[in-house]
Amino acid sequence: MASVDVPVALLGYGTVGAAVNRMLAEGGDEIERATGHRLRVVRALVRDPEKERDFPTGEGVLTTDFAAILEDDSIALVAEVMGGLEPTGGYVLDLLRAGKPVVTANKQLLARRSAELFAAASAAGVQLRFEASVCAAIPVIKVLRESLVATNVHRVLGIVNGTTNFILTRMEGGASYEDALAEAQRLGYAEADPADDVNGADAAAKMAILATVAFGSRVLVDDVAYEGIEGLRPEHVEAARSLDAVVRLVGTATLVGEAVDVRVGPALVAREHPLASVAGAFNAVMLQGDAIRELMLEGPGAGGIETASAVVADMVSVLGTAGTGFLQGDACWRTLDKLPPGDLPAAYYVRIEVTDRPGVLAHVAERFAEEGVSIARLTQHLVGGAAALDLVTHTAPSGRVEAALDAVAALPEVRGRPGAMRLVVERGV
Amino acid sequence: MASVDVPVALLGYGTVGAAVNRMLAEGGDEIERATGHRLRVVRALVRDPEKERDFPTGEGVLTTDFAAILEDDSIALVAEVMGGLEPTGGYVLDLLRAGKPVVTANKQLLARRSAELFAAASAAGVQLRFEASVCAAIPVIKVLRESLVATNVHRVLGIVNGTTNFILTRMEGGASYEDALAEAQRLGYAEADPADDVNGADAAAKMAILATVAFGSRVLVDDVAYEGIEGLRPEHVEAARSLDAVVRLVGTATLVGEAVDVRVGPALVAREHPLASVAGAFNAVMLQGDAIRELMLEGPGAGGIETASAVVADMVSVLGTAGTGFLQGDACWRTLDKLPPGDLPAAYYVRIEVTDRPGVLAHVAERFAEEGVSIARLTQHLVGGAAALDLVTHTAPSGRVEAALDAVAALPEVRGRPGAMRLVVERGV
Repeated sequence: MASVDVPVALLGYGTVGAAVNRMLAEGGDEIERATGHRLRVVRALVRDPEKERDFPTGEGVLTTDFAAILEDDSIALVAEVMGGLEPTGGYVLDLLRAGKPVVTANKQLLARRSAELFAAASAAGVQLRFEASVCAAIPVIKVLRESLVATNVHRVLGIVNGTTNFILTRMEGGASYEDALAEAQRLGYAEADPADDVNGADAAAKMAILATVAFGSRVLVDDVAYEGIEGLRPEHVEAARSLDAVVRLVGTATLVGEAVDVRVGPALVAREHPLASVAGAFNAVMLQGDAIRELMLEGPGAGGIETASAVVADMVSVLGTAGTGFLQGDACWRTLDKLPPGDLPAAYYVRIEVTDRPGVLAHVAERFAEEGVSIARLTQHLVGGAAALDLVTHTAPSGRVEAALDAVAALPEVRGRPGAMRLVVERGV
Repeated sequence: MASVDVPVALLGYGTVGAAVNRMLAEGGDEIERATGHRLRVVRALVRDPEKERDFPTGEGVLTTDFAAILEDDSIALVAEVMGGLEPTGGYVLDLLRAGKPVVTANKQLLARRSAELFAAASAAGVQLRFEASVCAAIPVIKVLRESLVATNVHRVLGIVNGTTNFILTRMEGGASYEDALAEAQRLGYAEADPADDVNGADAAAKMAILATVAFGSRVLVDDVAYEGIEGLRPEHVEAARSLDAVVRLVGTATLVGEAVDVRVGPALVAREHPLASVAGAFNAVMLQGDAIRELMLEGPGAGGIETASAVVADMVSVLGTAGTGFLQGDACWRTLDKLPPGDLPAAYYVRIEVTDRPGVLAHVAERFAEEGVSIARLTQHLVGGAAALDLVTHTAPSGRVEAALDAVAALPEVRGRPGAMRLVVERGV
């Protein structure tokens, strides 16, 4: 039963830790409105308190002394974002044993020592959450555990390593493995030492965690047979193309009767399969089960802010499920205006049917120009004796587009009032 | 603090109600292992207790008397799966006021009367959950409320009506609107009266609920400008194709500064956009926000079992968040065997490099036949003086494929040990 003000601590204050602190500070109002809690980072364990930080903490927050967190009874919850196996594993165990819930982003720790960690959490009656350990901002752990509890998930298919997905996407476009890897490193998608990404080890650890949660049976990273993409050659990409497929590093966890198989390796993915269209460094996980048939989640699988988003979600879920008003109140905490319907900016497709061709194109273009709507593309088709104009606008307020169409409809050469359809092209990627 | 045994009631016992009861009964062990609760349907409100049911209830469960549910203090939770606005709305209000948490699948009720319903839930300090009201088995409400609490979602894009998505997919393949609609009706994707699907009203109600949750500001179905697909002609589909796009019924909810715009209408979706590849009657929701950039959830958006799966997830979430062990224990409740690595069935792609062509194809085919691996496709490429065989197998245990490759590698004409890559083609759809 936490109160409104919830002191929390971080183990580690690197990119993810600083992003968590920033999100809790800058998103504090929203979090409090949604959950009734205001989380405040009161301690963060670091090796060097003097180092410059992305989002500096308040005075006295950074500490090199783990006991200052472990022994502070006011700290309700700890997020582990320092990574590594030791001393991290020992710290997490100590915290759980002391009755502090822990949220961790540590894939390697989970994929190796989950039995011990969960036993300690259970014994102490506290939660251990780990959404951020797999695919960053994609909430696949919560969905598996809380939404698919009765649906008998029997297969998990995933593109769970963004580095290799980026490299393979580039190789499809004609790049060599070496060039694609160098580009991934330049863009920050691959580490200076990319070994664990390209050899499949990173994906194997994630698939071990996903299989454990999906099937309710422990799978460790050592149980996963994995193979990387280092041996791929342009011939493989070419062969895939000839089979109307693409090469991807795919992890699969399969329940066959009462037995489990988890593996990671390059696979040929049919082009019409949803996993084939996972963009660049994004990740996707497909869950197949009885009631859900097939559910796919796609999003950014790495990155500091993306990982921090999952850490914060877990922190809020620990508190929210601990007895207070999380989700119980009204979803509406503010009253926003309705945007005037003509103000929404969008690009549009318009089809205009005309009876007489010479000059009509210019007249139509003029009407759009008068409303300040810029034309991206205009095609004229002959249809029998008449013609049709297919027109695509640049982004413009919908009211301006409608006004232009009213003016166009008034032209003597135009048959009927043309309609407009929005274009959906932009991505948040 | 619910105990292990949790008596629950249903309002309605049609397709969804019977599927909920079946899932709670047949999935009881799994649910108890995951959450510590065993949910038992002790009452179900129906109009006609004599009617034959999909999954018959025990003696005395069906009742025509709402008071038998409202006034039974042992009932911890009620799921509303009867639909309609009245008397349903009054029942739900009465239950909430009496302190009973309610889970509802009722999109129309939520999109019209959420203010009243949530106010009653808040006043009584109980939960009202509604995952099943939008896109059935896709857990978008939970993800928005619990995972994206601090990420400032500013745009929701959705294909939230499966009937129209199916029709539009078929029109792309050349069918007329009328034929595609008739096929949707034959396959059970469209009602005998498909008006609310094809005119956009169903999608508008869903977008109102999604916008409310995403932006934390109330949006009612009357605030949504919507347009259906009845006016679409083959020319539109043709024009989309020429722009490398597809026509889809798209709902958008956009936060522009402090104002909201929610609309539904046919739109042109660029073919490389993930929404363009949403299959047939499936639904997808794309969430764009600061920390998550872009998160997409895709799955079955309708159907009795799929809707029941969301209802059960909400029931479990209400209990799990009410103070017991939900998610606190170990995720591992059973010990499954590891499948012997050679036993996993899959289809494979194999590339075999050979020095000498005549006869080699037959020799290779023989080796696969000896291991009982059936070949789906075999292509021979000339590469300079040598040749390469591209081979695709039918589904076979991986160990058999590896054994065949060992035998192939021993052939004098074959250069090196060929590798195999799995094919990912099958869908759970």
